[in-house]
Amino acid sequence: MSGAPEGAVEILVCVKCRQGQPAGDADVLPGARLHDALAGQNLPANIRLIPVECLSNCTAGVTIALRGPGRWTYVYGNLDAATDAPVIVDGATKYRDAPDGLVPWRARPDHFRKNCIARIPPLEAPE
Amino acid sequence: MSGAPEGAVEILVCVKCRQGQPAGDADVLPGARLHDALAGQNLPANIRLIPVECLSNCTAGVTIALRGPGRWTYVYGNLDAATDAPVIVDGATKYRDAPDGLVPWRARPDHFRKNCIARIPPLEAPE
Repeated sequence: MSGAPEGAVEILVCVKCRQGQPAGDADVLPGARLHDALAGQNLPANIRLIPVECLSNCTAGVTIALRGPGRWTYVYGNLDAATDAPVIVDGATKYRDAPDGLVPWRARPDHFRKNCIARIPPLEAPE
Repeated sequence: MSGAPEGAVEILVCVKCRQGQPAGDADVLPGARLHDALAGQNLPANIRLIPVECLSNCTAGVTIALRGPGRWTYVYGNLDAATDAPVIVDGATKYRDAPDGLVPWRARPDHFRKNCIARIPPLEAPE
């Protein structure tokens, strides 16, 4: 995809996450497993999946961030690579559909309500 | 200040942080106290102090974020309003001086090394 279409959002996945466990050389890391599970989800329009190397939430991984231009950025943790890909797609779709990224509390997936690590307001446009 | 000069960075401070404590109506919240302490620090050039209402790191406040265009964003927690303003100014100055926001580990203030809550890569410019 070249450039980000208006309204597009990103799911950043920390693909180096070991979820607090040592990993043998042959293991696929939990973060990479979550990325692969999301890649198999047939993501809705205007949601881009992006692997990143460390979101520095190592004590509460697996970790993702949702972000997009003009939106609040949200970091979510404690994700399960085996089961949480559909939850993330649900939450990311609601995030995409909220122009400022602020999804009403009751509309958020239960895991997102309980495992928000941090959020950051959008950069203000220069005056 | 109108607009953000090139190379400028922001310290976002969660001014609603109660640091896990109930607060009486007359109390100044810990987050607001940290903001006020930073406001009294005579900040170096191109570092802007911005109060925000919630960075959603409520279990490990007081919380700040450092960010700037084209830079990694960092969230730091467990800050002490009474003592940590100079630490934050030191860390923010090093962050300002690193073009991508990536300050070498050994150069970071000790508190930043031990209390990084999350980091988020810069938005890529559209291709």
